[in-house]
Amino acid sequence: MSAPVIPGLDGVLAGDSAICEVDHEGGGLRYRGYSIEDLSAQASFEEVAFLLLFGTLPNQKDLNTFQDALVAARSVPAYVLDFLAAIPESVNRMDALRTAVSILGLDDPDTGSNAHAANLRKAVRLCAQLPALLGALANPSEEKNTKPPEEGPRGHAEYLLSLLGQEAPEALSIKVIDVSLILYAEHEFNASTFAARVTASSMSDFHSAVTSAIGTLKGPLHGGANEAVMAMLLNIEAEGDVQRYLSERLAKKEKIMGFGHRVLRKGDPRSDIIKGHAKSLGEARGELKWASLSAEIEETMLREKGLYPNLDFYSASAYYLLGLPISIYTPLFVCSRITGWAAHIMEQHDSNRLIRPRCRYTGEGPRPFPPLAGRA
Amino acid sequence: MSAPVIPGLDGVLAGDSAICEVDHEGGGLRYRGYSIEDLSAQASFEEVAFLLLFGTLPNQKDLNTFQDALVAARSVPAYVLDFLAAIPESVNRMDALRTAVSILGLDDPDTGSNAHAANLRKAVRLCAQLPALLGALANPSEEKNTKPPEEGPRGHAEYLLSLLGQEAPEALSIKVIDVSLILYAEHEFNASTFAARVTASSMSDFHSAVTSAIGTLKGPLHGGANEAVMAMLLNIEAEGDVQRYLSERLAKKEKIMGFGHRVLRKGDPRSDIIKGHAKSLGEARGELKWASLSAEIEETMLREKGLYPNLDFYSASAYYLLGLPISIYTPLFVCSRITGWAAHIMEQHDSNRLIRPRCRYTGEGPRPFPPLAGRA
Repeated sequence: MSAPVIPGLDGVLAGDSAICEVDHEGGGLRYRGYSIEDLSAQASFEEVAFLLLFGTLPNQKDLNTFQDALVAARSVPAYVLDFLAAIPESVNRMDALRTAVSILGLDDPDTGSNAHAANLRKAVRLCAQLPALLGALANPSEEKNTKPPEEGPRGHAEYLLSLLGQEAPEALSIKVIDVSLILYAEHEFNASTFAARVTASSMSDFHSAVTSAIGTLKGPLHGGANEAVMAMLLNIEAEGDVQRYLSERLAKKEKIMGFGHRVLRKGDPRSDIIKGHAKSLGEARGELKWASLSAEIEETMLREKGLYPNLDFYSASAYYLLGLPISIYTPLFVCSRITGWAAHIMEQHDSNRLIRPRCRYTGEGPRPFPPLAGRA
Repeated sequence: MSAPVIPGLDGVLAGDSAICEVDHEGGGLRYRGYSIEDLSAQASFEEVAFLLLFGTLPNQKDLNTFQDALVAARSVPAYVLDFLAAIPESVNRMDALRTAVSILGLDDPDTGSNAHAANLRKAVRLCAQLPALLGALANPSEEKNTKPPEEGPRGHAEYLLSLLGQEAPEALSIKVIDVSLILYAEHEFNASTFAARVTASSMSDFHSAVTSAIGTLKGPLHGGANEAVMAMLLNIEAEGDVQRYLSERLAKKEKIMGFGHRVLRKGDPRSDIIKGHAKSLGEARGELKWASLSAEIEETMLREKGLYPNLDFYSASAYYLLGLPISIYTPLFVCSRITGWAAHIMEQHDSNRLIRPRCRYTGEGPRPFPPLAGRA
C-alpha cells in the first residue's frame, strides 16, 4: 500500500462535525458559531450545555426546563456512592470515576437504545449525576450528605462547589467554576472525544463511549495535564527558582506541562480567559505568588521554546486558589466535557460509519511455522 | 483546510505496527509473520498469546513458564466476583465485563506504570483473570465454585470451558475453543484495538485502554456481531425459509450479520477455518441443521451481494453447538482479543504519539451572542 502513514493522525480530517470550530486563521474557538469569549463572559454553563446538546442557545423557558431536568436527575444510586466510598483514597480518582460511570451504564433507564432522544436523556442524566460522583471522589470517607441533591443550589457551578464542601461560596468562586466548565466543555476531535466516537462507531452505547472518554482524558498528555501543572507549580515554588527549574528540564528535553497544543499552535484563546480569572482570584485572596510565578514561566516558555500556555496552565492555579484538592482537577474536567462528548456521541450515532483505520505493517514477513519441539 | 475528509478513516494508515499483517494480495492473515492457517492448526492459544505479547514463539521451556504464570494469576478478588454476582442477569454481559475490568484497574499491583515490563505483567494477569470473569458472567446466580482456580485444568481453553460448567469436556470441544481463541486474538487496527490505542496515546494506563476496547467491541458492528448472528440463525430456523428471510431484509437494505468486512473485502481467511470446525462439531453431535442453514445463507449472500462470511458467521453456530449461552459470545471474544489489545497498548506506549485527528467543521459560521432575555 502506498498511502502515507500518519502517526497520531496529525492533521487528518476524520469526519464532519457541526459542534466546535477551531479558527486557525483568526485564532478563535467557537461552539456552534458562538465565540468562546462571548460564551465565557455572557453565558452560564447550563446555557452552553444546552447549546452543545440541543444545537441552539436556550431561551429563558428552555433554560428553566433544562435546569429543572438537571436538578431532577442529580441522584446517584446509593450502591454507586457506596462503591466509591469503599475505594481507598490512594486509588487514582479518574480510575474510580471511569468505573462509577461504567456502573451507571449497567441499569440506565434507556439502556439498549442508541436513538437520538435516548442518548439525549442519557446525556442530561449523566451531566446531572457527575457532581455527586465528584463529591464522593473528593471526600470518600466523609459522612454522606443526607440532604437530597434536588435541594442543593440550583446553579450547576454552585451545586458542584457545595459537593466539594464549599457551602455558600463567594460569587467570584462560582463564576470561576462556571467559566472553567464553559472553557473545558468542548474541543472537536480531541483524544477523549475521538475515543468516545470510536467506541460509539461500533454502535456500542453512550455509557461505553463516555467510559472510553474518561479513560482517555486521564492521561497526562490530555486532561491529566491540569493536575500535572499544579504539581509542577508546587515544585517550582518549593525550589524557588523558576529559571533553573525550566532550564534543567528543557536541557533534558522534558515536556513542560501546560504548554503547547497539537492543534492550537499559535496559542490557546481559552488560556487568556482563565488567566484573567486566576489573577482576579489571587487578588481577591491576597495570594499573588501563583500569578507572578505563572507569568514568569509563560514568558520563559515563549522565549525559549516558542510555546504558548494552554487551558490547563492557568486552570491549575485557579483551582488551587479555590481550595480544590488536586486529585479532582481532571474529574472536574469530566463534569464539563461530558457535554461535548455527549454531542459527539449523538452526532456519531446519528450518521454512523465504523471508525476502522489501517496500520502500516512493519513486522516480520511470512515465515514457516516451526514445531514446538524444534524451537531453540 | 483543503485536506479530504475520510469518514471512518477508511484506508488511512494511522500508524506503524509489527503485530498483524493483512495480506490483501494473497488473501492471508498473519500474526508476526505466521499464517493464521498454521497457527490454528499447529499452535495452542497459549503459544499464540506468547507470540503476540512477547514477539516470538515460545520454546517448550518458555511455554511452561508462561503457562505457570497464567495459572498462578487466575484469581480474581472476591469483591469483583461478588460485584458481578449482584448484577441482574438482564444486564448486558459486555457492560458488566467492561465494569469488572475497570474495577480490576483500581488496585492492579503495577498501577501507575506504563513501562513495557509493567504492561506485560498487567497483560498476563488480565489474560489469566478473564476466564473467571466470564464464568461469573455466565452463571451469576450459581454457588461460587470453591475450588481454587489454580487447581482447574492447566490448558487455557479447557479451563475456560470448566468455568462455563463443562467439566471434563471432549477433546473436540477444547480444540474448537482453542482454535476460536487463536482466530479472534488479533486483527491490527480494528475498532476496539484502535480505541485502546487512542486511550493509551494520552499515556493513560493499560486497564483504561482495555476498558475502552471492551466498550467498543460490544457494538453490533464489531464483536457484538457473533451474538447477532446466532439470534439471526435462530430466527431463520424458526421461520424455516432462508430465501424469504434474506430477500425481505436485503430488499429493505438491512445489514445481514456476519457478512462483509471493512478490510477483508475478498473474504475472511478465518471463516473457512472455523467453518470446518463448526461442521466437525455438528457431525460429532448429529446436529447438521446449522451447517446446512449456514451454507445456504453463505451461497445466497455471495450470489446476491457479493459478500463473504467473516469470522463471526460460523463462530456463532460453533459456540451454539458447544452449548455456550449466547450472551457470552462477545465476552468470550474478549478472552481472546485481550492478547492483541495488550500487544498494541505496549506498542503504543513504547513509541507514543497522541492520537488526535481533526474534523471538518460543517456547523454554523461565526455569529453574535444574543443575550438570554432577547432570545425567541
